[in-house]
Amino acid sequence: MADADPALLGTIETPALLLDAARLQHNLQRMARQMAALGVRLRPHVKTAKCLEVAQACDRASLAAGVPGAAEPGPITVSTLREADRFAAAGWRDITYAVGLSPNKFAHVQRLLEAGVALTVILDSVEAARALAAAAAAGWRRPVQVLVEIDADGQRAGLRPEAAELPAVAAALQGPGLRLAGVLTHCGGAYHARGEAALRAMAEQERAAAVHAAARLRAAGFEAPVVSVGSTPTALFAAQLDGVTEVRAGVHVFMDLMMASLGVCRADEIALSVLTSVIGQQPQRGWTLVDAGWMALSRDRGLAGEFDDYGLGLVCDAQGRVLGEGGGEWIVSAANQEHGIVTHRSGDATRRLDLPVGTLLRVLPNHACATAAQHTHYEVLGLPGAALQRWPRFAGW
Amino acid sequence: MADADPALLGTIETPALLLDAARLQHNLQRMARQMAALGVRLRPHVKTAKCLEVAQACDRASLAAGVPGAAEPGPITVSTLREADRFAAAGWRDITYAVGLSPNKFAHVQRLLEAGVALTVILDSVEAARALAAAAAAGWRRPVQVLVEIDADGQRAGLRPEAAELPAVAAALQGPGLRLAGVLTHCGGAYHARGEAALRAMAEQERAAAVHAAARLRAAGFEAPVVSVGSTPTALFAAQLDGVTEVRAGVHVFMDLMMASLGVCRADEIALSVLTSVIGQQPQRGWTLVDAGWMALSRDRGLAGEFDDYGLGLVCDAQGRVLGEGGGEWIVSAANQEHGIVTHRSGDATRRLDLPVGTLLRVLPNHACATAAQHTHYEVLGLPGAALQRWPRFAGW
Repeated sequence: MADADPALLGTIETPALLLDAARLQHNLQRMARQMAALGVRLRPHVKTAKCLEVAQACDRASLAAGVPGAAEPGPITVSTLREADRFAAAGWRDITYAVGLSPNKFAHVQRLLEAGVALTVILDSVEAARALAAAAAAGWRRPVQVLVEIDADGQRAGLRPEAAELPAVAAALQGPGLRLAGVLTHCGGAYHARGEAALRAMAEQERAAAVHAAARLRAAGFEAPVVSVGSTPTALFAAQLDGVTEVRAGVHVFMDLMMASLGVCRADEIALSVLTSVIGQQPQRGWTLVDAGWMALSRDRGLAGEFDDYGLGLVCDAQGRVLGEGGGEWIVSAANQEHGIVTHRSGDATRRLDLPVGTLLRVLPNHACATAAQHTHYEVLGLPGAALQRWPRFAGW
Repeated sequence: MADADPALLGTIETPALLLDAARLQHNLQRMARQMAALGVRLRPHVKTAKCLEVAQACDRASLAAGVPGAAEPGPITVSTLREADRFAAAGWRDITYAVGLSPNKFAHVQRLLEAGVALTVILDSVEAARALAAAAAAGWRRPVQVLVEIDADGQRAGLRPEAAELPAVAAALQGPGLRLAGVLTHCGGAYHARGEAALRAMAEQERAAAVHAAARLRAAGFEAPVVSVGSTPTALFAAQLDGVTEVRAGVHVFMDLMMASLGVCRADEIALSVLTSVIGQQPQRGWTLVDAGWMALSRDRGLAGEFDDYGLGLVCDAQGRVLGEGGGEWIVSAANQEHGIVTHRSGDATRRLDLPVGTLLRVLPNHACATAAQHTHYEVLGLPGAALQRWPRFAGW
């Protein structure tokens, strides 16, 4: 944890999104070491941070650890074409857009290709493949790479690895302007797997699904050079990734309470928090009011209802130390747009954080992607040579 | 409802935030007529739209309806000092910041005052009053107006109207650089009151609390020229507002499924929706995948668990007509960052929206403030003289 000078924190108007540079670096190195050990390329998902500086730090960590294919700038995954635009403008070239493509984005895809981006898109049906093939054949001068999305766990999109339609989708992707490149999967079920054994099993399920689908494509006479898998839990808990060519992961850069609940990280490895001020009390209800409401925290409830319930976030002191004797005792239990209500996690209204108006606190996020999305920039603490630095993030589509 | 040319909608990349100009106008006129009838000033809360054009439309509707104190630009309420900055830069001058003030915002308040803004802030304790008085006494050349926040319903911040400390807070606000202006309350309980009788009772509870607190201040020898109340439900259902000088309301401009659940509006009066495309199917699970996930919709669950559960939003066709024979049959039942899963509201997996990839749909928001906050601009449909216009919104603190 970066030591934060209290006077420095006092210069920040609350609420604000804090990024601890030392914890970020720790998290990046952990993932890079794992990828280097497994011998697989890392294609970080920039949807979590939506920030050029964070992606640059990822690239540097991969290079330093000797991750295969690491470069500066390196390969990235995006969740929106806006991310592709922004990263392309800053020099990134090898970009995978990992959300099924709708036809009203074809023109945007073509613009990115013509700007020199090596863009890969995904789809999971003959219908979508035919639509893209028809568009690409009508004069796309630079080909788009296509991965067939595979459903490893019944959680979202994709064809099951054993789906009868798989070769037909591949067949629909033969033609000018596009190139079938392989398969991609994401085991969202990993966000519901707690503990090392369950996480390892999820990683293997994800790997096996992708490798099996790629093998079926090859057996049917198609090329499938790319076998892309990933999520933060499966990436960090995979014992081996034989047959996989790249791993995608996003939230590993910051970590969050969901990852802590699953046993993927400890709470004191979470690099992101929302700095907030006490603005009042309701002593008879055990409430401390803070100026971080759902606008600053997001409404994401993480794994509440399934595993740990932290309300809208876990409360730390200004230095980022979890409050309470055993730790983890105080949460943001309710919120309005710009008000958060901090209570004891037990719900015991006779217990109250008795802190003066103006006291600074930090709130750890349930879900880093969602909390970060509520902010326009990061206040980065602990960078060498800069007490406090602002890294912008972008939004929209 | 504005007729949306299908070819026009086809030019928008999804997901996108649509604003129906005709419905917006209808909602603004409804509130303005109510305020004119009650004879009370309207101070719209710009936190919902965070958009200059929407605030301008509010001002015009108030002027046209003859709302007392209406002007162009008129009085506004803000939830952040960023909103105050942006509106002040665009000419708005009479601004109330309706969130308890933390000391790390004092310098920002002073900057706004010195830029010529007639700024009003709120607080609810002797401690906070003393801190502000000390800062203001140390050389603020233009005074800040202060309202004491009153707790009308035990939902959030504020002093109870009968609280013994009330005169002491007022006493702590006597001094150079600041001026006690009265009281402010917001009956958040109105968001849990369903039906006309319950809403009318909430409006009266809110009015009575504020008027009582102001009377106590006056009886103790303090001036209290401002008695500010409001929320969209209480504003629209108040039968009389005797003793109240101004009403604040925000979500009335757009309306949303929460307001529809309470009986404040009909679903076909909701002006805001998220335009989305079908990107795939999982037929065996009854799923239609769309490109509006929680990033486009927000994670706000509205009044689920209490009244109607619309998942993350109610699905309409591209023209904004609620889908299903009886209406209200299809919802976004789950979402990832950029994926939404549309299912039948009954949970019956044998029922599925069988629509081709690329089909456009609209999703009505549970909570307009939260959904709009996920976007950088509005695509405004149906403005005179412009088929489609983009109105920017801003974010951050």
